[in-house]
Amino acid sequence: MKLVSYKTKKSFGSYRMGIMYPHGVVDLQEAYRDLLVKKGEREKALAVDILLPSHPDAFYKLGKFGIEKAVDVSDFLVEPELSKYFIAEQNVSLGTPVPNPSKIICIGTNYKDHVAEMKSTIPDYPVLFSKFANALIGPEDKIKKSKQTTKLDYEIELAVVIGKEACEVPEQDALEYVAGYTIGNDISARDLQKRTPQWLQGKSLDGSTPIGPWIVTTDELPDPSNLELKTKINGEVRQSSNTKHLIFNVPTIISFISNLMTLQPGDVILTGTPDGVGFGMNPPQFLQSGDVITMEIEGIGELENTVE
Amino acid sequence: MKLVSYKTKKSFGSYRMGIMYPHGVVDLQEAYRDLLVKKGEREKALAVDILLPSHPDAFYKLGKFGIEKAVDVSDFLVEPELSKYFIAEQNVSLGTPVPNPSKIICIGTNYKDHVAEMKSTIPDYPVLFSKFANALIGPEDKIKKSKQTTKLDYEIELAVVIGKEACEVPEQDALEYVAGYTIGNDISARDLQKRTPQWLQGKSLDGSTPIGPWIVTTDELPDPSNLELKTKINGEVRQSSNTKHLIFNVPTIISFISNLMTLQPGDVILTGTPDGVGFGMNPPQFLQSGDVITMEIEGIGELENTVE
Repeated sequence: MKLVSYKTKKSFGSYRMGIMYPHGVVDLQEAYRDLLVKKGEREKALAVDILLPSHPDAFYKLGKFGIEKAVDVSDFLVEPELSKYFIAEQNVSLGTPVPNPSKIICIGTNYKDHVAEMKSTIPDYPVLFSKFANALIGPEDKIKKSKQTTKLDYEIELAVVIGKEACEVPEQDALEYVAGYTIGNDISARDLQKRTPQWLQGKSLDGSTPIGPWIVTTDELPDPSNLELKTKINGEVRQSSNTKHLIFNVPTIISFISNLMTLQPGDVILTGTPDGVGFGMNPPQFLQSGDVITMEIEGIGELENTVE
Repeated sequence: MKLVSYKTKKSFGSYRMGIMYPHGVVDLQEAYRDLLVKKGEREKALAVDILLPSHPDAFYKLGKFGIEKAVDVSDFLVEPELSKYFIAEQNVSLGTPVPNPSKIICIGTNYKDHVAEMKSTIPDYPVLFSKFANALIGPEDKIKKSKQTTKLDYEIELAVVIGKEACEVPEQDALEYVAGYTIGNDISARDLQKRTPQWLQGKSLDGSTPIGPWIVTTDELPDPSNLELKTKINGEVRQSSNTKHLIFNVPTIISFISNLMTLQPGDVILTGTPDGVGFGMNPPQFLQSGDVITMEIEGIGELENTVE
C-alpha cells in the first residue's frame, strides 16, 4: 500500500491522507467511513474524524492503529467498487508524506564507498545527525537554493518512517516498529556543512529536503535489506547502489537509536547515502538552478525534484 | 513576567500556562477570561479556549499574540484583586516550560574558556547542533541517567525561546523575535558525544535535559548580554561566568540561524556553556546518581535537578 499526503488541485485546505492506486488516489478517511457503514458500524462512522484523522501529522501519530485501518480500507476496496473512489492523478497534488516528524535522524557515512569519496573513516558506531521539519518538502516541490550556499549537493537515501513507539528495541524485532519506507534526498550544502565541526547548518536549510513520493507500508515492502537505489542528475546516472551495502542496516539503526532516544510514530530516519555525490566527483559538481534530480529506489518508486 | 507550565498536584490533566508570582501561580487562561468579562467582551470570553489556548505547546505557537495577552493579564492583575487568583506554590507542579519545540538548536564551543577546556578551537561561525524534544524535562524532574553512558556531564546555558517567526532577521532587530529566556542544562554524555564525529547521540538522551523553571519574558528581561551564570554540584561552585563572554551573542546567533532556517515561535536556542564542566576537570568528574545540580542565571532564577 502506498500512502500519500494529497490535496485536490482546486482546494485551499490542508493535505489529507490518501492511498495511491495506479489509476488515482483514494481519500483514506472517506473510504474508511464507507467501510464502517458497510460493516454496520454507524456510530463509529459518525466519529471517523476522531478515529482516523485525515491530516498526515495526526495520522502518523496514531501509529499502527492508523496503518491497520488503512490496510482494512485497502483490503475492502476491490474492483469493481474501487473505481468510484478514485480522484484522478491529474487532479491531485502530492505533499510531503510526513510533514512534521518529531525527529528527523540522519545516518552519516553509512556506505563504504561514500566514506571513501568523502575522505572520511568507517565509523565504529552509527553517526547520527539531524534535520528539522523546516527542511522537508514533497515530491512536487522545487528544492530551495539558499543564497548562503554555492555547494548544494544531493544524497539518495532509503527513508524509514516509524510506526510504533520504539524504546530499547532489540535488532531482531526492529522492523516491527516500521510504518513504511520512502525516498529521501538528504540535500547538503557542503560549504555550510563543513565550515564548523557539526553538520547541522548545512543539512537543514528551509525547503531543501525532498521526501516521497509516498510511504510504502511494510505489508507491501517487508524487507529493506536488498533494494537498488539510483540517482540521475539531468538524466545522467550519478549514484547507483543497493541497501545491502549499508554499513549499519535498518534493524541495527533502529535498535541503536531506540537505545538512546525513544522513537515516536511518524519519526523519520534517513539511512545514509552511497557514493556518487557531487562533492566526490573530480572536479566536484554542485547543483545548479534548474537541475533535475531523479531518484529511484526499488519497491518504492521515483522521486523527482527540480532545483529552484 | 514569569511564564510557567503548571498543574495542580491533584490533577491528572495536561499542563497549563500560568504566571508565577511571589505568592503563587495564576492560571493564564482563567485570568484572561475574567479580564475579557471585565472589559465587556463577553463573546471573546466565551471563546477563550480558542483565543488563548491553555496548553504550553499551543500557547507558544501563538507567538507574540499569546505573550501580549499574558502581558495584559499581568497588567490587569494588581492588588488587592491579585490574591484571589493565586494557586499556592505548594499545590502546584511545574512542568517543562516549552515541552515540544519544533527545533532545539544548541550552540557549541561559544565561550573561550570552555573551548580551551574541551581542547577545541575558537569557531569562525556559530557551531550548531541539536537535541529533540524527547530530551526535555522540567524543573521538578529528575535527570535520567541512561545505562548507555558513564560520562554524564552538565552545561549551564542561557536558553532563548523564540516568540515570532524569524526568517533572515538582521542582528539589530533580532531581540524583537524573542519571547523570553530561561535556564537550560545541556546535559551531555561525553562518551557518546565523542564516539562519532557528530555529537547528537550524546546530546538527546531521553529525559536528560532540564529547562526552566520558567520563561522570563522580554518586558522583564530585555537585555541578555550581561547576565551572571553559576552552576553548583552538591553545593560546590563549578561554573561561574557571564553572558558577556559569549563568542557569538544572542542577536548574532538568532540572525545567523534565521538566515539558514526559519525559526518558529516556541523554538528553543541553547546559547552555549562557559568553562567548568566536569569533562574539563583534572581528573574529569562526571555526574553520579543523587548529584544535585543547581544552576542560576541572573534575572531568571534557579534551576535545580537531581540525577536519578
